[in-house]
Amino acid sequence: MQIAIVLFDQFTALDAVGPYQTLGPLPGAETVFVAAEEGPVKDDTGNLALVATRTFADVTRPDIVVVPGGPDVPVDNPVLRDWLRAVDTTTTWTTSVCTGSVLLAAAGLLEGRSATTHWLWMDKIEQYGVRPTGERVVFDGKYVTAAGVSSGIDMGLTLAGKIAGDDHAQVVQLMTEYDPQPPYDAGSPEKAPAHLVEMMRGL
Amino acid sequence: MQIAIVLFDQFTALDAVGPYQTLGPLPGAETVFVAAEEGPVKDDTGNLALVATRTFADVTRPDIVVVPGGPDVPVDNPVLRDWLRAVDTTTTWTTSVCTGSVLLAAAGLLEGRSATTHWLWMDKIEQYGVRPTGERVVFDGKYVTAAGVSSGIDMGLTLAGKIAGDDHAQVVQLMTEYDPQPPYDAGSPEKAPAHLVEMMRGL
Repeated sequence: MQIAIVLFDQFTALDAVGPYQTLGPLPGAETVFVAAEEGPVKDDTGNLALVATRTFADVTRPDIVVVPGGPDVPVDNPVLRDWLRAVDTTTTWTTSVCTGSVLLAAAGLLEGRSATTHWLWMDKIEQYGVRPTGERVVFDGKYVTAAGVSSGIDMGLTLAGKIAGDDHAQVVQLMTEYDPQPPYDAGSPEKAPAHLVEMMRGL
Repeated sequence: MQIAIVLFDQFTALDAVGPYQTLGPLPGAETVFVAAEEGPVKDDTGNLALVATRTFADVTRPDIVVVPGGPDVPVDNPVLRDWLRAVDTTTTWTTSVCTGSVLLAAAGLLEGRSATTHWLWMDKIEQYGVRPTGERVVFDGKYVTAAGVSSGIDMGLTLAGKIAGDDHAQVVQLMTEYDPQPPYDAGSPEKAPAHLVEMMRGL
């Protein structure tokens, strides 16, 4: 089983690393980081680079594709778009975190489907004919989309459970000690203080 | 303000990226990834490398140090140990995630203090004169230690709130949509199925 995690300039690091840490331990899985070229790919702050170990040309039949998001995803990049369309024809699961779903939607892969994205980008996926939902992890056939950034951890665990069973997923949860205790309850626009939500909508 | 995130061979990726994503947005902060040499540093699976942007020699007065863990942390590495001791004399906060606290403890920085680590390594930090606690994020003076892997997200948010205030930390939580909804409740040895806990203790 090959898991291909896509990297592109200005991706958000946790979008990629959350699913990596939770899906990577799947039995018999090989995880590759794929980009236009091999080598370091900088994230959305420019301070962190993850290393792509494969080019798009190298990876033609991944079983699982994970597309992270970022504040400015490359919707008009034809190489990425064509690769997503091509590999999607044979994937078992095509997944995204955050605005990664904007890339899947722009490639035409989510048309007429239910999906999610970062809460600030819900209108954007709707423009591509997607039905946005407020759920944190959305399954529609083989398409699995997660909400903003940290939701990729929940997506990865949920998908790991579907693929390898509850015991496996719970071992991963226990190994990563994923017993979240956020110091605030501001993780969604419904829960966060209204003045902060408005401030972010205005950015 | 300089945040220095330490990298070493076989670190656990999410240990580093969780605090990076939550502490990085601190106002006026510069985040650097520091290792023995600049360039890619492989994680504990060997499939992912993060790029070190500074050497230990380059980073002499970081304000915040973040030490990730891994399944086999380099407690006997004199370069890392001496660097941790040297920079700790001027840090505002010295922090760790997972078995990163084993490295701090081995450097003698946690002696007589309360701290935490991954649940499987509690005995290990005790051997260095540390008082292990069962809390997910432990503050003892300027030393902030987090439990296993994913707890670095909670540590980063908590520390961000202390440094820059509740509004700032809540904006970071909202931006990263950290509204965790794990599909299982197996994130600690107290909550996970007993047979899985025993299996992991036996590994």
